[in-house]
Amino acid sequence: MIKKCTIFYVSDGTAITAETVGHSLISQFQGISFNEIRIPFVDTKEKALAAAEKIKNAKHKCQPLVINTVVDLELRKIIHSGGGLKLDPFNRLLRKIEKNLGIKRSPGVGLTHGITNSKAYGRRIDATNYALTHDDGVSVDYDDAEIILLGVSRSGKTPTCLYLALQYGVKAANYPLTVEDLDKMQIPAQILKNRQKIYGLTIDPFRLSQIRAERRPNSDYAKMRQCQREVSDAEALFLRNGIQYLSTTHTSIEEISGKVLLALNLTNKLH
Amino acid sequence: MIKKCTIFYVSDGTAITAETVGHSLISQFQGISFNEIRIPFVDTKEKALAAAEKIKNAKHKCQPLVINTVVDLELRKIIHSGGGLKLDPFNRLLRKIEKNLGIKRSPGVGLTHGITNSKAYGRRIDATNYALTHDDGVSVDYDDAEIILLGVSRSGKTPTCLYLALQYGVKAANYPLTVEDLDKMQIPAQILKNRQKIYGLTIDPFRLSQIRAERRPNSDYAKMRQCQREVSDAEALFLRNGIQYLSTTHTSIEEISGKVLLALNLTNKLH
Repeated sequence: MIKKCTIFYVSDGTAITAETVGHSLISQFQGISFNEIRIPFVDTKEKALAAAEKIKNAKHKCQPLVINTVVDLELRKIIHSGGGLKLDPFNRLLRKIEKNLGIKRSPGVGLTHGITNSKAYGRRIDATNYALTHDDGVSVDYDDAEIILLGVSRSGKTPTCLYLALQYGVKAANYPLTVEDLDKMQIPAQILKNRQKIYGLTIDPFRLSQIRAERRPNSDYAKMRQCQREVSDAEALFLRNGIQYLSTTHTSIEEISGKVLLALNLTNKLH
Repeated sequence: MIKKCTIFYVSDGTAITAETVGHSLISQFQGISFNEIRIPFVDTKEKALAAAEKIKNAKHKCQPLVINTVVDLELRKIIHSGGGLKLDPFNRLLRKIEKNLGIKRSPGVGLTHGITNSKAYGRRIDATNYALTHDDGVSVDYDDAEIILLGVSRSGKTPTCLYLALQYGVKAANYPLTVEDLDKMQIPAQILKNRQKIYGLTIDPFRLSQIRAERRPNSDYAKMRQCQREVSDAEALFLRNGIQYLSTTHTSIEEISGKVLLALNLTNKLH
């Protein structure tokens, strides 16, 4: 059985789309170790020839897989002269859409991840700045937030807020529940008045203790007992205030983001 | 001619893959205004029925487009009972790969954006923390960086570093060239000793002035003359030190990231 295979992501743009599609495909073949090679910005004959050469030289036992999203037909041909298995996710779908809409596509290079919609792009950059200035309880004003993530220190709030901003252009603030908040069993008033925007993150105390120990080894902060107490208090606080929450222990920032958007009914508002 | 059309991204996971594919497809039909609706985490009959209902009720003149990446066959059927145009980017490609590799896929739900590789996932989170602690010149130590972005204030360094971290797990620091640096025409020693990791960002002075004025209206900092001077000095500094650079004026963070990775030869190191 083949154990190792190379997959190429070849694009005239960033190759992010090709790579996303590729990840999805290879995630279904878990017995195989894939060597992933990204070849972005292939927009000249020279670069296409270089890509073909790399494909030709991929030295694994299986024919290399090639996800090719280059728009220019001549460049596509050159790339495929490298002899990989052609995987084109778009051509057939584009023809289907053309038929459905009754119009022809107008191909363009690098449109997917370029600044084609400067308003939406500006929103993502603004949201990123917002996340940075409303991170970790540094802000006193949460009224502009579209989402406020609550949770104990190191439960995954910051990376999630940044992802929500960069990917979706959503203004996400976060507030770390302090020991004082938990002792008082109270969420600060400036947060609680935006209750409909609040979502809670929790985490397995054992995992939390590991993460905190990496940051501050041998601290009280990282002790298992401390983590257990904070997590259980935080969950009690969420329940008491009717705040939805999820555990980040086995959940990626992409999944957390998706679930928070869905729970706060923000899925359709975007773009 | 049809001017408005609805496109649904239906998935049993985050729907990020479906959406990425969809963006790519609709970017080729620029005459049409697409209403994009994301329906993530469709993993029960009830949710599939609700999705079908939404598709059925899409009230535009064209048959709604449906990118359906749900793995479960029964749920797929329910979703397509809503009557949209079926767009499956994966099925045909998966069959092609199966044939090529000589093995069957092992379908799983929500694998693409879950934590399937906890080492790679940990690297992304670590890199995000790194970007935050090595942002805007707050650090004195750049030796652990894989990339150091240099540029004047507000040239796009921070969002790019965060994107590099979240998307690629690359440790990217950034340092804002100060007026003092530019007056001395010198890059600080702790940066310059990592010269092979440095990449410069520049920006159109007019655009820079706009961005700065949003932050600090009527400031010297935002004045056109000041922006022109800083940008031209920064570019001279890059040239003098043999530092590659690009303009972020019309370039998205995805494109900047891709170009920086390529220029610093980091494209194949990832994953």
